[in-house]
Order: sequence, then C-alpha cells, then structure tokens
Amino acid sequence: MLERAFGLATDLYELTMAAGYFENGLQNRTAIFELFVRRLPQRRSFMIVAGLEQALDYLSTLRITSDQLEYLRKHPTFSRVSPGFFDYLAEFRFTGDAWAMPEGTVAFAMEPMLRITAPIIEAQIVETFLLSTINFQTMIASKAARVVTAAQGRSVIEFGTRRAHGTEAGLLAARSAYIGGCVGTSNVEAGHLFGIPTFGTLAHSFVMSFENEDDAFRAFLKVFPDNATVLVDTYDTIAAVRRLARDFGPAIPAVRLDSGDLCELSKEVRRILDEAGMTNTKIFASSDLNEYRIADLLSRGARIDSFGVGTELATSFDAPALSGVYKLAGLEEQGQMSMRIKLSRDKATYPGAKQVWRQKDETGKYRQDLIRLEDEANIQPGDWHPLLEQVMKLGEAVGPSVPAAGEDRFARLAEARERAQNQLSHLPDDLLTLDSDSKYPVEFSERLNQEREKLEHRIIAMQEPA
Amino acid sequence: MLERAFGLATDLYELTMAAGYFENGLQNRTAIFELFVRRLPQRRSFMIVAGLEQALDYLSTLRITSDQLEYLRKHPTFSRVSPGFFDYLAEFRFTGDAWAMPEGTVAFAMEPMLRITAPIIEAQIVETFLLSTINFQTMIASKAARVVTAAQGRSVIEFGTRRAHGTEAGLLAARSAYIGGCVGTSNVEAGHLFGIPTFGTLAHSFVMSFENEDDAFRAFLKVFPDNATVLVDTYDTIAAVRRLARDFGPAIPAVRLDSGDLCELSKEVRRILDEAGMTNTKIFASSDLNEYRIADLLSRGARIDSFGVGTELATSFDAPALSGVYKLAGLEEQGQMSMRIKLSRDKATYPGAKQVWRQKDETGKYRQDLIRLEDEANIQPGDWHPLLEQVMKLGEAVGPSVPAAGEDRFARLAEARERAQNQLSHLPDDLLTLDSDSKYPVEFSERLNQEREKLEHRIIAMQEPA
Repeated sequence: MLERAFGLATDLYELTMAAGYFENGLQNRTAIFELFVRRLPQRRSFMIVAGLEQALDYLSTLRITSDQLEYLRKHPTFSRVSPGFFDYLAEFRFTGDAWAMPEGTVAFAMEPMLRITAPIIEAQIVETFLLSTINFQTMIASKAARVVTAAQGRSVIEFGTRRAHGTEAGLLAARSAYIGGCVGTSNVEAGHLFGIPTFGTLAHSFVMSFENEDDAFRAFLKVFPDNATVLVDTYDTIAAVRRLARDFGPAIPAVRLDSGDLCELSKEVRRILDEAGMTNTKIFASSDLNEYRIADLLSRGARIDSFGVGTELATSFDAPALSGVYKLAGLEEQGQMSMRIKLSRDKATYPGAKQVWRQKDETGKYRQDLIRLEDEANIQPGDWHPLLEQVMKLGEAVGPSVPAAGEDRFARLAEARERAQNQLSHLPDDLLTLDSDSKYPVEFSERLNQEREKLEHRIIAMQEPA
Repeated sequence: MLERAFGLATDLYELTMAAGYFENGLQNRTAIFELFVRRLPQRRSFMIVAGLEQALDYLSTLRITSDQLEYLRKHPTFSRVSPGFFDYLAEFRFTGDAWAMPEGTVAFAMEPMLRITAPIIEAQIVETFLLSTINFQTMIASKAARVVTAAQGRSVIEFGTRRAHGTEAGLLAARSAYIGGCVGTSNVEAGHLFGIPTFGTLAHSFVMSFENEDDAFRAFLKVFPDNATVLVDTYDTIAAVRRLARDFGPAIPAVRLDSGDLCELSKEVRRILDEAGMTNTKIFASSDLNEYRIADLLSRGARIDSFGVGTELATSFDAPALSGVYKLAGLEEQGQMSMRIKLSRDKATYPGAKQVWRQKDETGKYRQDLIRLEDEANIQPGDWHPLLEQVMKLGEAVGPSVPAAGEDRFARLAEARERAQNQLSHLPDDLLTLDSDSKYPVEFSERLNQEREKLEHRIIAMQEPA
C-alpha cells in the first residue's frame, strides 16, 4: 500500500523559496495569493468549481513528519541552509485564512476561485497541492456538466476509474463528476468515502466464464433479481435480448449495450422489449461515450435511458489539463498591505485581494461578472451578489460551504451538486451548447485597472538599469 | 487528509460479479486474466511498461476493512446476497500468481504486460486497480520516453504535479517519467518515497515579493550559492541576465527561461553569459514544452542545456488515456484449464496463458515479437527471448524485478529506468521518430490462431437459439 502524508506533496521550489524567505528573515510577512484560470481550455465556456473540500482538509491537517524532515535535511539542495529552517518545518502548520467560491459554483477565466492570506512562507508551500487538487476536480466537474447537459435529463454515471490517472484520480473524478451532475459512479470507494450513489452491471468475463450466455444470465439474475443490469453484447446483442424476453420477460430490470451501433441497437432492443411487455425494462448504454456522441445518439432518436461514461469523463479527454495558476496579489510591507502584479506580456496579473460579483438580468439569467477589489464599496444598483466567501480562518475551516468536523460530508457534496445545477440553469443558453462561441462577460473594475497601471509604472521604475 | 485503504478502490461491478460467482458456488475456479492494450494511442509507436511495483504492493496487501465491509452490507445492491459473501470478503486476500513484463520493458499493442492466475473471484475484484495503475504509469513512461528522445541527450525534468490529475497522479507521474528517462522531478514526495532526484528553482512570486529583481536574486543566491537556478523572466529576461553577469559573474550556477521565444532568448543569453566568462552557467528552459516544441527548439539551434516539462508530460496531454484492458483468457472446468475468448468483432481476444517472445536481428536491433501460448516449446533457432517473468506466487511478490520487503526501492526503480534506456536503444530507429508511420511487427503463433478459431466455432455452437 502506498502510504502518504501530504507534507512533501509539493514542488521542491516551494521549499527552496521557503528557505529563501526564512534565511532572509522575510518569512512572516502576510501575503495574498489568488488561484485562477487565465484561459478556459478548448471547447469550454464555463467551469464548475470543485476540490475545495480536499484543499481545506489539506490546509487544516498539513504537517511535515520527522521522516520527511530527515529526507529534507539530507537533500543536497539544502546543504547551506541553517538548522533553524528545519526546526521551523518541524513545527510547520498552516495558520492562514482562505476565501473561496463554494464547490459547484459556475466560474470563468480570470476569476479568483480561491484566495489565501497567510505568512508568505506558508502560502508558498501549499501552492502545489492546492493547484493540483482544484485544477483536477474543477476540470472534471466542468466536463461532467457538459456530458450531463448533452444527455438532456437522462442519467449519466461516471465509469472511468480504470482509465483515470491512478486510483486517487478515479476516486476524485467520481466526486467531481457527481458535483458536475452525474447521478453516481462505478467507484465503490467514492460511495464509501463520499456517500455518492454507486452503480454496477457485469463484465464480459462473467458471461464468458459460463458455457453459454443464458447460464450466465440465470446465475446473475438469481443474485440480483431487483437491480441487475444485464450485459447483452458478449456474443449477439439482439439474440441475447430476444432470449431474455422469452425466458424472463418483465423481470429484467435493465439491459446494457456496450458495443456496436448503439443508436440502431437501442431502437431494436426497445422494440423487442416493448413487444414482450417489458416497458419498464431500461436500456443502459456505454462504449467510448462523450458529450458529442451522446448528443448525436439522442438527435438520431436513440432509445437509451441512461449512459455510462468512462475514459472521456474521468480524464477530461479532449482537454485533459486545467491551467490554473496561483499568483501573488499582495504582500505586507512595514505593516501595510502592498499590492503586487506580474508584468509579463501574456501572463499579466491584477493586484490586491479581489471579490467576484455576479449580476442577474430581469429574467434571472446571469448577465455579467465584475472582478473588484475586496474593499471597494458594495455595488449599487442592480441585482449583484458576491461569489467568494470565507472558508478558513487561522488555519481552521469555517463558513457554510465546508463540512465541520464530524458532519455528514455527503450533505455538503449534495449541496455542491445542487448549487451547480441551480447555477447552470441561470447561465445564458448559448453558453450551454457544446461548441459555444459565446463568451460570458467578465470585467475588472475601474479601480483595479487603475491600480494595475500605477503598479506597472512603479515596478518599471524600481528595476535597476542593466 | 484523505485516508485510503485500497479494499474498495474498485468498480461496483467487480463486487457484484464476485457475489454472482460466490452465490453460485463458482468463486474458486482458477482463472487466467491478461492485461494488454488493443491499440496504441495516437502518435505512439511503443510503450514503456510501468506501475508494476504499485500493482504488486496492492495485490500483496489488499484487505477489506470492517468499516468498508459495513458499507457494503448496507449497500442496496447487495440486499439479497447471503451473509456468507460478506464473511468471505472479511477474510479476503489475494492468493494468486502473476507474470509480468518488468517495469521499463518496451511493449506493443496486443502484448500481455501482466497476467494473473487466481481464483476467479479474486482475479475479478483486483481488475480496476490493476488497470488504473498500469494504464496510467505506462502512459506517462511512454510519453516521457518521447520527450527525452526529442531532447537528444539534454536533461529533462518532470515538472507537472500542479496540472496532474491530483497529487497522487503527480507523484506517480514523477515515478513513471523517471522510468521513461527523465533525470528527475520537482515533486518532493517522489524524492522522499521513491528516491528520485528532485530539482527546483524559484517562482515569479519570490521575485515579485522584493521591491526589485536584484534584491530577489541576492536573497536567493545567498541561500543557494552552489545550486541556484535563477529565474530571469519576471520583468525583462535580457536585462536581468546582463545584471546577473555584471554583479555575480561565473558564480551563477544556472538561469531559467520561462516565457517568450525560448530559442532566440537562449542564444542571446548564452552570448551574454559567454562574454562574461560564464561558460559553466547552464541555461534551463520551461514554458508549455512537449516533445514537438523541444525538437523544434533544438532544430533551430536553441542553446538550452536542460528542460522542465510539466503539464504535457504529467497528463500525457496529446493522448491522455491508455486503454488497457484485462481479459479472461482461461478458466478451470472440472479440474482442467479451459481457454476463453471474447468474440465481439472489434474487441476480439486470444485464448490461454501467453508468453511474448522478442527476436533480435544480427545487428542487435529488435526484429519482431511473437505472442505464443506459454506451453508452446521454446523457440528455435534465432536470437529470441521471453518478456514475461513470474512476479508473484500465492499472493507474495517474487522474482528479480520486484523489491523484496525492506529492500531499497530506488535500486529497482533505477534498474527499470536503465532497462527502458537499454531497450529503446535496440528499437528500430524509425520507431523513435516523433510521428513514426512504422509499426513494429507483432504476431500471434500459429497455434494461438488455431486455438482461437476452434473456440469461436465452439462458442457459437454453445449459444441457444433465440
């Protein structure tokens, strides 16, 4: 078994910077970092925020074990670093504050989804874990929302653990796919740890382990008479369904198509089932599905009641990385918070702690988002609401969107899923089409633009000539 | 912290099938399953096998905890399953045997990389974990081999944890990228747990936390005088390098380019460094790199000594899933092993326990692979060698390619990396080009084709008419 304590789940440069701050006596200045995505991946017109629960779990339990410390002490990179740095790491805790969009929030490019305020050394060390967790889960929740939208109300079950990037990725893909709108997953661990409904059928190997297919059906239906989904494509889909109809009739809860022309097969299977009075027997389909194939199947009149989506969902196959970044936006200097930006031409950032405001139009649809400094006065008039809320205070999770110790995690997860569904229903319709050309309007406040410009001039003036 | 015991890291259908076997008294028949990839992903002409160590760790420690068992007992799917099944799960151990290609082996489509022989109920339950682990790590090791090949002897460091599919994916990506030929990783946990060399520089936020860039350089170089890689692109790359040359000279170990036209910048930076007598100062480059961009940079004469490759490597961005499957190849019937195949047109399988044989030509290059039944007599004549070796016996890891308890894991990992490099050097050259049209010859033995045909006829005869 792979045992993991997350103290070293970070990039080495976070620790070299930590040493750099520490050895220069600069480690305790309060810093503001914001996590956001500069550009949405191809084919994406919105994101569904996910991964906050794991991020907060990490921040509130983060320790560096003595074994891990021993490794760092012997690391050649740190050969000139003073013992005081390692003493610091031995006692390391995250003591900062965090603001975030609750899981299930619809978000767009450039919008801070998470903001950390902490001593700079702490804020730096946690960067890698926060990015990895929130990038991945947000990517999958966003992909799931597309797949679920394409299914037009039919159930979608996440099926992808075997193609996920390892079993933790499978587990967290199941979680974020649920937030994005799936009704459940095949991943049993996700059922156990997160309370997500789990579903399963049977594999070709089960059918192949019997001399003939009907023996396999009988053996399986004996054990799962109420909820068996019978896989019918091992040898000949139509023949198998005909025999099921003849021998079992309406007692069959569902059949699963897993190869061939799913559209034509589903129509033919539906006809056979209906003629046998099996109108309650459902048709479940899988086989390299994604949002485009589902949309195509339904547009051609496929008679499918629910979909299992694996590889494409659990890897976000057509856009398998979300390039979230975590950027310094402010830093304490002589007791004052001073704003910070990055200048690089195509990777510019905006300064200061921000809040994202969203406006609804008269029909209740979202009209636009406005990114403002947190301390700008409340917006008037119009139907505006802020998206970021405080989720951690002095290293402890707080606020309505995160589970308190001992609380039922599933209730929070179900809320996140509901939040996503609710917010998606307020999105302008054209953002929900699979290849949307529309871009949701997101702007920076006038004051943010002014502050940014002032800082640009100041930074350029501060650099020494070559 | 996310606590995981791997007992439920599986798909629900593995457990419903397990119940199906158990309740029909069929659970103890010995089964043979083989794990292989039907078709290589786009742009891939070979694979590097990886993930076996984690697979064997899992098999040898797999347990279902009482907490997990409680979850299953209450699961509605199992409402009609007898208490005996749960008693069985409470004592569940993997007791089977396994054969595998050692990590670092070059493999091709249709070749079994792992073969499990175990009571069918055990072989079934472990399917999901084995697929997830070996699919992912093999995919990353294979991608890494492409990136490293493109770098033509220059060092490549894996940098992708922040974009990996969660932090476990980041950790295992670092491991498999190392097997595939990277010299190290930024992931500290991979250094600690696996002994992989770790590297780090500094981030823009470190530079931005100082009033001017030179203060940041001084602060960092004070702590890491021997091994600092100085990030020079926060404001103006060329100006920063000129000031470094003026103020520090040859004391600078390395500089890092992270944006802009890496080719032109590297030439200009090299010129400035050389003119300042800093011929030993290395140039490290990163910024959305992959094998194609590296090949392009080098073809245009870029003066880069080593590359940091993140997102594209840790997600295998252009082919982010490896579709390995795990198929029943044989099953005990009345004390005899009986072969099994799947018929479906485009997903056919071959029966029986197999061995993969590889032949070298007179120059030492690999000429062809031949997949044969394990019990076919040894091949004569010609320079043939078998690729699969026994790695587990009665649930315990055995053989030269897996670490024994307490043994140094890094030595095994280094061997796997060496094996990959050695085998890659024997590949026909045209398979190593980035867009190879060549297909390495892999054939099935005559006897395998005969057995397959016999079985096809038998299966079709065994199905009942509709």
